Formats: sequence, C-alpha cells, structure tokens
Amino acid sequence: MDLSDRIETGMQTAIRYATANGCPQKLGKALKYAVFPGGARIRPRLCLAVSQACGDKDPRVANACATAIELLHCASLVHDDLPCFDNAATRRGKPSVHKEYGEEIALLVGDGLIVTAFETLARETLHAPEQTARLVATIANAVGSPYGIVAGQAWESEEKINITAYHRAKTASLFTGAVSAGALSSYGNPLDWYALADALGAAYQVADDLYDAMDDTDSMGKPAGQDAENGRPNLVAELGVQGALKKLQELVETAADSIPDCEGADLLSAMIHKEAKRLMPAKLAASAA
Amino acid sequence: MDLSDRIETGMQTAIRYATANGCPQKLGKALKYAVFPGGARIRPRLCLAVSQACGDKDPRVANACATAIELLHCASLVHDDLPCFDNAATRRGKPSVHKEYGEEIALLVGDGLIVTAFETLARETLHAPEQTARLVATIANAVGSPYGIVAGQAWESEEKINITAYHRAKTASLFTGAVSAGALSSYGNPLDWYALADALGAAYQVADDLYDAMDDTDSMGKPAGQDAENGRPNLVAELGVQGALKKLQELVETAADSIPDCEGADLLSAMIHKEAKRLMPAKLAASAA
Repeated sequence: MDLSDRIETGMQTAIRYATANGCPQKLGKALKYAVFPGGARIRPRLCLAVSQACGDKDPRVANACATAIELLHCASLVHDDLPCFDNAATRRGKPSVHKEYGEEIALLVGDGLIVTAFETLARETLHAPEQTARLVATIANAVGSPYGIVAGQAWESEEKINITAYHRAKTASLFTGAVSAGALSSYGNPLDWYALADALGAAYQVADDLYDAMDDTDSMGKPAGQDAENGRPNLVAELGVQGALKKLQELVETAADSIPDCEGADLLSAMIHKEAKRLMPAKLAASAA
Repeated sequence: MDLSDRIETGMQTAIRYATANGCPQKLGKALKYAVFPGGARIRPRLCLAVSQACGDKDPRVANACATAIELLHCASLVHDDLPCFDNAATRRGKPSVHKEYGEEIALLVGDGLIVTAFETLARETLHAPEQTARLVATIANAVGSPYGIVAGQAWESEEKINITAYHRAKTASLFTGAVSAGALSSYGNPLDWYALADALGAAYQVADDLYDAMDDTDSMGKPAGQDAENGRPNLVAELGVQGALKKLQELVETAADSIPDCEGADLLSAMIHKEAKRLMPAKLAASAA
C-alpha cells in the first residue's frame, strides 16, 4: 500500500468506530464531513515516511500514529474556523463544519476527533503495549498545552505575543509530533529526528504565511488574507515574498540535510523535496523549480 | 492518603504539567480556574473507591485514571457552558470560564483538558505498560463518539432524541468509565462492575434532574431550571419529585447490591450510600434519611 492508501484506510477505520451504530446522525455526518475528502495529509505522510526511513518495523503502529495526527489536525481546523477564532466560512473549498452543521456540532466534532485520535492509538497498539504510553505522550504533547496546538492558538489571545513560541506551538509542534511518532513507531530515536522536524515545521509556517499573503485562496482551500485581518504576525510582511520564498527553500534544505543515517535516507530526501513543491503556492513553485 | 487528597494531588500534578513554563498566561490561568476549586469530584472518588475494593494494586495507575476522568468531566462542563450550548453565566458559584476569560480561551481550555487527560494516563502508566492501551481505550470510549459524553451532548441537536441513548451517553458513560477504569487499574474485570456502574450512572441522572427541577441552584453550583428552558427531557416532569426520589433510592440500592464479591465490598457499599446522600438536593436528603 502506498502512503495515501495507508492514511485513508486508517482514517476510514477511525471514523467508522466513531460513527458506529447508535451515533447521533448529525454528529456522525459532521465527523465524516470534517475529515473527508482530506487536504494534502502532509503530517501523516511525513509520519509514515519517517517510519519507512526507520525500516517500517510495525506498520500497524505507524498507521495509527499517522491517523491520530491527522485526526488532531482536522480537529484543530474545525475549532479554528469557529466564529470566536477565524470565523471562516469555507475550508477545503466547501462550507466550514459550523457553517454546514452549526456551531454546537462543530464544537463536538472537534472534541470527538481529539478523543478518537487517542482511542485509535490505544486500539491499534494493543499488540505492542511497550509503545502505547510513549506514543500517546508524544502526540498529546504536540497538540496540548503548554507546547502544542492548543497553546499556539491561545497565544493569539495574549496582549504580548511571543512569536517564536507561537509559531512553534501552533505549527511546528505537530510536525515534530508526526516525525517523532513516525520514528518511535519503528523503534527509532525521536531525538535523532528533531532537527529535521524543526526545520520542516518552520518551512510549513513560511509556506502558510506565503499562501495567506499571496491571496492564493484556491490552492490552500481556505480564505487568504486572514492573518492581516486577524492581526496575526506573518513572515511575508517582514521579508517580502521573495525573501520568504528563499527562507522556505533554505529550511527545506536544512530538513533534507538533517536526515539521520538510516536505510531509507535517500528516499526520504527525495520525498521532502517533492513535498516542498506541494507546500508552495502554485505560482511560486514553477519559478522555484 | 484519603481519596480527596489523592484526587487533588493528581489534579495539581496534571495541571502543573499543562501550565508549565512557556504556557500562554491567560490559558494557564484559565486551565487552573476550570478545575480548582473542584466540585464534588464524584467520578474520580468512585474510580478510586472501586480500585480500593479491588485491592488498590497500583495506586499510581488508579490516581491517573481518577485524574483523567475528572479532567474530562471538567472539559465537558467548560464546553457545555458555552453560548452555543447552555450559555451558562455561572458554574460552581463563580463566572463560567467563557464569562471570565472569553469564548476562545474557554474553547481551548476544554480542548487542552481533554489532551491533558490522555497525557496524564500515558505519563503515569509508563511503569505498567500492559495497562496503558486498555485504560486509554476505556476512558476514551466514555467521553467520545458514538457512546460517550460528546455523543450525549450531540443528541441535543437531533430532531428526534433517543432518551435512553442520550442519558446513557451524556451521564452514565463517564460513571461506567470511572468504575471500569478503577477496576482495571487494580487488575479487576470491568464486566463484573458493569451493573453497578449502570445503576449509579442512572442514579446520578435522576439526581441531576431533581436539582434542575427543584431550583436548587446553590448546592449544584450551576443555574437550575435549564432543562425546561433548553427543552431537554427531565425525569421529574414525568414522575414528580417523590417519584423521582423513589427511583433514585431504588437505583442506589441496585448499585450497592451489584458490588461483586471482593475484599472491599462492605466499605464500598457504605460509601455508595453516603455518596447517594450527597447526590440529593439538601431539602430531600433530610426526608430520605
């Protein structure tokens, strides 16, 4: 199975459990709506790619990690889109979950996806009990407080924002979680992978800022220009488009250079360069070829 | 340590991790605000009492379960109080989290508490890896979809409500989770405890309906009369106050009679009867003595 198939199968299984017989109808529909069709699935792809680079020693565990990470990412999108945050009417080219199902269901969908992520990790690691606790802890760390997505989003409510902590928590943390979980699932050492995760997380933040600043609504699947509108820091405002693009390319090289010595190193390096292209707004990817 | 000390120590530790150095200030304050001072801590007390009845074979694991369950309960209260649900201005006699810190922080507090619950389970079961997955799965089941609190709350958005499924998911599920996790943490069989959990969950639902109907705002710590206001089913409307009280007493007897054969059976039976008194609105508890 290629990476996409592994991810979609994992997502289907997780959502099938969460929407099993007895689930209130609206909630069930909204849970599916929030995760299918997916976006680029960048974080779970990264998780599986790192697991492969480490020998893919327990694909079932790696798949569970990839699934949990994507479920948590989707949860954060559903909650971020709510009126009290971005008040975004669309996501991935269709109405956001709260526009389609109402705020109360959107809130519950986010909560439900968070719980489903950890349930999935538990269910799919029963055969490898020595793995469960460290994977749950690693992934929880990447999404919770004080260093994960929840904290990242909370920085936006502070009067004085710590930009480094903000970007690290809001964006880089889940990349680090994806890379660490991928390594752990194949009995690798996540510390060997930290530099790569850090560079990729930063690269993604730059890419996100580029999309937002370039008004490239279609390819990102969410409305552009929200950073300025919501008074959030954006690197393009600081470095300009070309400066930000250069920064992005440097970070991708740093990431590729940080791959530790492992059997799948070359394959992973090729993948990182390929994914980097997908990260860039279309008009820029051509010029950066 | 008595049960209350174990619970408060567990909560303090969990929140200390979640609000560690680097946490955005408002989020950190709001996380503490949402869980301290606590309410009756009924669910974690039940969890620890069942673990004790089973010999309290790994207090660290039992404490983690109790803590996780209470964190998840607090998370559900913070989200339930939000304007899109109950729009409750107060909780436990003080402003609700969103009234004090704003909707966006309240939303993140709920998310953060959910994540912290699972992180706590992982961190505190590292020494007992054979326990982690089944405890995470058991507790996730009690709070997620399709049978946990998330689903229970979602039933309120359905046009046609399945009352049994609604009460079971919204209230009884976390009691079942608390009892099951307590048994598991001392290597008991949760199936032996199912009848007790089910009866106690139903008893709590009746007690909740009694408080709501009797306008006993002070002792419950949340505004009364919300069921009628929000068009939710309430057993007192169906059975009357005396009928509901009788039902509550029957359920408590059923719970006590359902304690399986174990070393701590007598102690647990006494505790259930004592806690049942705490469950009742003060004016009724006296007459039911």
